[in-house]
Amino acid sequence: MSVLRFGFGEKIITNSVIKDYQYNDLKLLNHYFEVQLTDGVVTLSRKLDDDKIYGLGENVKGINKRGCMFTSFNEDDPDITEDRKSLYAAHNFLIIAGKNTFGLFIDTPKVVDYDLGFSDLDNLVIKTKDGFDLYIIDIESSTPELDIIHEFREMIGKSYIAPFWAFGVAQSRWGYKSKQDLEDVINGFKEKKLPLDMLFCDIDCLEEFEDFTFNNTFYKNGKIDSGFFKGLKEDKIHLVPIVDAAVKVKDGYFLYEELMKEKGYCTDKDGNPYIVGVWPGDSLLPDYLSKSGSEVFGRGYKKYLDLGIDGFWNDMNEPALFYSKKYINEFANHLRNIDYDKFHEMDFYIIRDKVNQIKNNIDDYKSIYHKYDLAYKDNNIVNHYDVHNMYGYKMVEAAHNYFEKYNLENNINKKYLLFSRSSMIGSHRYSGIWTGDNAAYWNHLLLNLKMMPSLNMCGYLYSGADIGGFGHNASEDLLIRWMGLGIFTPLFRNHTCNWVRAKDYHLMQRTNIIRNILSIRYALLPYIYSEYIKAVNNDTLLFTPLAFRFRDDERCADIEDELLFGDSLLIAPVYSQNANGRMVYLPTDAIEVRMKSGKDYKLTNLPKGDHYIKVDLDEVVFFILDGGILPLAKIDEVDKIKNIESVNYNDLEFIGNIYNKKEYILYYEQDTIKEKKIKLN
Amino acid sequence: MSVLRFGFGEKIITNSVIKDYQYNDLKLLNHYFEVQLTDGVVTLSRKLDDDKIYGLGENVKGINKRGCMFTSFNEDDPDITEDRKSLYAAHNFLIIAGKNTFGLFIDTPKVVDYDLGFSDLDNLVIKTKDGFDLYIIDIESSTPELDIIHEFREMIGKSYIAPFWAFGVAQSRWGYKSKQDLEDVINGFKEKKLPLDMLFCDIDCLEEFEDFTFNNTFYKNGKIDSGFFKGLKEDKIHLVPIVDAAVKVKDGYFLYEELMKEKGYCTDKDGNPYIVGVWPGDSLLPDYLSKSGSEVFGRGYKKYLDLGIDGFWNDMNEPALFYSKKYINEFANHLRNIDYDKFHEMDFYIIRDKVNQIKNNIDDYKSIYHKYDLAYKDNNIVNHYDVHNMYGYKMVEAAHNYFEKYNLENNINKKYLLFSRSSMIGSHRYSGIWTGDNAAYWNHLLLNLKMMPSLNMCGYLYSGADIGGFGHNASEDLLIRWMGLGIFTPLFRNHTCNWVRAKDYHLMQRTNIIRNILSIRYALLPYIYSEYIKAVNNDTLLFTPLAFRFRDDERCADIEDELLFGDSLLIAPVYSQNANGRMVYLPTDAIEVRMKSGKDYKLTNLPKGDHYIKVDLDEVVFFILDGGILPLAKIDEVDKIKNIESVNYNDLEFIGNIYNKKEYILYYEQDTIKEKKIKLN
Repeated sequence: MSVLRFGFGEKIITNSVIKDYQYNDLKLLNHYFEVQLTDGVVTLSRKLDDDKIYGLGENVKGINKRGCMFTSFNEDDPDITEDRKSLYAAHNFLIIAGKNTFGLFIDTPKVVDYDLGFSDLDNLVIKTKDGFDLYIIDIESSTPELDIIHEFREMIGKSYIAPFWAFGVAQSRWGYKSKQDLEDVINGFKEKKLPLDMLFCDIDCLEEFEDFTFNNTFYKNGKIDSGFFKGLKEDKIHLVPIVDAAVKVKDGYFLYEELMKEKGYCTDKDGNPYIVGVWPGDSLLPDYLSKSGSEVFGRGYKKYLDLGIDGFWNDMNEPALFYSKKYINEFANHLRNIDYDKFHEMDFYIIRDKVNQIKNNIDDYKSIYHKYDLAYKDNNIVNHYDVHNMYGYKMVEAAHNYFEKYNLENNINKKYLLFSRSSMIGSHRYSGIWTGDNAAYWNHLLLNLKMMPSLNMCGYLYSGADIGGFGHNASEDLLIRWMGLGIFTPLFRNHTCNWVRAKDYHLMQRTNIIRNILSIRYALLPYIYSEYIKAVNNDTLLFTPLAFRFRDDERCADIEDELLFGDSLLIAPVYSQNANGRMVYLPTDAIEVRMKSGKDYKLTNLPKGDHYIKVDLDEVVFFILDGGILPLAKIDEVDKIKNIESVNYNDLEFIGNIYNKKEYILYYEQDTIKEKKIKLN
Repeated sequence: MSVLRFGFGEKIITNSVIKDYQYNDLKLLNHYFEVQLTDGVVTLSRKLDDDKIYGLGENVKGINKRGCMFTSFNEDDPDITEDRKSLYAAHNFLIIAGKNTFGLFIDTPKVVDYDLGFSDLDNLVIKTKDGFDLYIIDIESSTPELDIIHEFREMIGKSYIAPFWAFGVAQSRWGYKSKQDLEDVINGFKEKKLPLDMLFCDIDCLEEFEDFTFNNTFYKNGKIDSGFFKGLKEDKIHLVPIVDAAVKVKDGYFLYEELMKEKGYCTDKDGNPYIVGVWPGDSLLPDYLSKSGSEVFGRGYKKYLDLGIDGFWNDMNEPALFYSKKYINEFANHLRNIDYDKFHEMDFYIIRDKVNQIKNNIDDYKSIYHKYDLAYKDNNIVNHYDVHNMYGYKMVEAAHNYFEKYNLENNINKKYLLFSRSSMIGSHRYSGIWTGDNAAYWNHLLLNLKMMPSLNMCGYLYSGADIGGFGHNASEDLLIRWMGLGIFTPLFRNHTCNWVRAKDYHLMQRTNIIRNILSIRYALLPYIYSEYIKAVNNDTLLFTPLAFRFRDDERCADIEDELLFGDSLLIAPVYSQNANGRMVYLPTDAIEVRMKSGKDYKLTNLPKGDHYIKVDLDEVVFFILDGGILPLAKIDEVDKIKNIESVNYNDLEFIGNIYNKKEYILYYEQDTIKEKKIKLN
């Protein structure tokens, strides 16, 4: 086993890696890649044999990414199609698996381009700007992918652990505008006897899109309506507000004023605030890379924490830019100088191009500066473009650091839910992620499945997609089938865009089916949470491609629509509209578990091999592989489940191979995370 | 068996249906739908049981369209994602299959909205403006879908038959700019020993995007270079130029001048030409619905026909509008009146919205007028919006009519290749279609497969997708896997957008594999062409969903990634990147045909049921179902095939069930289409 570290030029320190390794002579790298350094760009290339390529975290396409192109450059763009080279994250870890199998981590916040046998099926080419560390993890083993991942995860440090309640049922919609809207959701859930653990508030609940505020509907007689928050507490519903990256320019707004006072903002090259436009209109970009920006913004959470709020999602932190003041001014000048008496369609096309370039404009990113003490030896001023991918990472770190401080100051030991849209490896220690603004597409349901193991590889264990899709209208069957996957993902949130039809659970027609499937989530929670904690503690995967564990089974090599989940289960959700079922390949003899609700299940033994599995819309079917064991929380009455506290960890039943297994190691949360070895026979 | 015709108000005659049926009392329709007429809108609704819904021709989503929404409104938009409600066609025929199975055809050129159990899984709602005919086809049978389709196809008349050579290998790219570029392709194909039947020229080969021209690179000493065309003829390569719907406004351009002279253009409400912008800049929209517009444009083909050109594709005929003169002027006025000293981001957002609305603007469509003699009893002026979906239909009809005239005038009996982007049922009698500007997405390869039977149902038999995808960069494995489907589609064209990397066959790395797969196409041609002619003659499907033929086999009900092809074959192409094979369900015992080239194949008997079929990148695997028979043209040497004339119809071999089958009815073209009954034993 060896981890080889290589240095290329003066690097920007990212703290993605927490272990220290010796640098090696670059010559050693030639064993893995042909290396070229031209004009400050490092090119790694390698002839591909029948290699598979795994990793790269949050990206489109398959689990095996051979034949694809990607670019690490965090990007807010909701049109998630097969050609997208980057989503919201920079996860520069991959495994090249073939005759020789090794892992590769490029430790840089800069743009990295991957051509993984796309332009030329037989060649891999990776390019990035000089100034980074590169790690090779080379392990000889019968399960090299799993061992390389384990080693990599040790390198980058333990993954963020979400509080237990964050494994409950989450309802969200961009469109809730007021306290009343939230109360309507709560009442709707109660009326339909649906459980609820987390209720999200999106930007419209804020005062003029200002972070750490609520709009006036949350106020009574000039004071925040504490009765509302008390009610939430009684119902054990966690309110999870959104926290956007940019801060509204507005005199009197505490966060704006503090950032201005402490110069905690991103600047232009002359040190003036770089004004950009996002939801609140003209805004500052807090400089999360600077001590002052990070601390000022972190302190902002106090407003929410003092209300008892303990969950947050960080959004727009690629950062997303709708415009910059600079660009708007240039655009206005362009328009001002047109001779409208001679207006020609070419004038129009030029305007169109300028309009299309304003969002997330690269020139803006290149015009923004940070103060980052770890940037360079003798200079802490760094151009945003070179640290772009760190922005979301540093935003969640600011929150994490303040939560620790807040706990200390208040002598408490609270766990906080925190997950983010943008991420870079390193941020996995401080927060989870959701997979961004997906769409109500059946192929995004399948993409969700394919993405999970890649996210796990890069340290993101608390994660999930917007169930049913964020953008576009969803049909109820899509929502329900997506729940069939979602009940296994740690973050299990129904979230929707504001201009499409609502698909909140309580507003659907088939609330019976939905209630039953939600109850399956609760029944499975002892397993889900235990396997999640094991994956964090042991630096392993929660979602594992079949090919990693059953390496000698050729059939597993290209199965990309089933996953191993935890130690014992194989999941194979239905992802095609109007399908009555699907084919499932079982790599071992297995027990089919067919659940209609948390208390209604049927077990069937199936031999290793291919099976057509019928799955009605009101069922979830999964499999316990040979030797596997599944603890199930006993659900007495489905419509009496109110929230995650309904799960009784003291009354479990076990299914699977209980006669051959001695014990199941159960994890649960009781103030802290507890371990319990349960004897099975 | 019954065909019921119902009339709603004064209709615009489409000639989609060629048989005459009596009108029925609307009360009879209540057996099928709840009917509501409100404010000129007719709403048909129906409770859905476990019905499946087939049809609607060119659209996204599955073969079974239950749970989806669609709108018939022909649209040029290359972002083909799952949420798209309309593509380039209006194919208003569907089958509702359940306890009662019946077909429905809405004979209207107007917008039709379909909610096929999307908003409410249990309800179907169809809406359209008053003024149309509606047909119900109700047949009791053991194969009702097939029988309904047969009846419908008889109603709408025989499908267009493409010339035999149009079943050959087609190379196209938006990006060929000159005669030299075309010659380079031809030479490239020769060098790589690749066969070629059709070479397409796109808009850059024209003189300023003017229809029926070539740019000056095709001229020598002021005259068209006849040597080039002679060379093509010698090589038996058919040059297929593009013909766009709109006509450049340019003095001296014959087509513009003739349209102006004969007032064959679309107008504004005052009768003035409605100037729109497309590729040539300011353009007329020929009024294909008017006698003068249709005839003037039709005559334009003479320029090409006289050069010996006998194949054409009609494009941009939704019609696609980049802008209208009217909108551009309004836009300029808006910009002129902005106070740029107070320019605010809201000004920007308003401009952005105006920019985004300019393309295919609904207000433009509503401001355009046609002279259509079949529009109304006492008025031949019709608003474009009400006949929008007919525009492409009438464009191909204009060509068809002129071809007939040209043949008569020249006393010849030539067959012409004609296919179109936009279509409406009725146009299937005059031309084929391609499926528009798809993308280099693996899910578009699967979409191609799913779309084929729906197109066939609506009369479009000569059709196919751009192999490897039109938009976005394609990897070579995608191109090759897509060929594995494309070799079965009548139109088998490799076509690519101009700003993505070229994927012409001769430019790829694995030309050996490509050459071999192309040779499979030629070996299969006797079967493909014969089954195609039978499907036209008998008003049947060339591509059939398994569920239609094996109605009692529950497993076939939701198989949407395999198709029956012709009478004997089942095809199941690989559509996942990096897959080594795929699962295939065989509804009968079958013979697996594993071809590495037209002359290299291996047969294996397989029993009915599920099979994992390994398919290497250099293979095409398909199946001869029980009782099936496959004629194969003998390929002696793969690299000696130059074009479709290399296929020897007198030297066939037969594989499959030759001992139980008495004969195979073969069709081939020899001046006219010939039938030959070949005795098998």
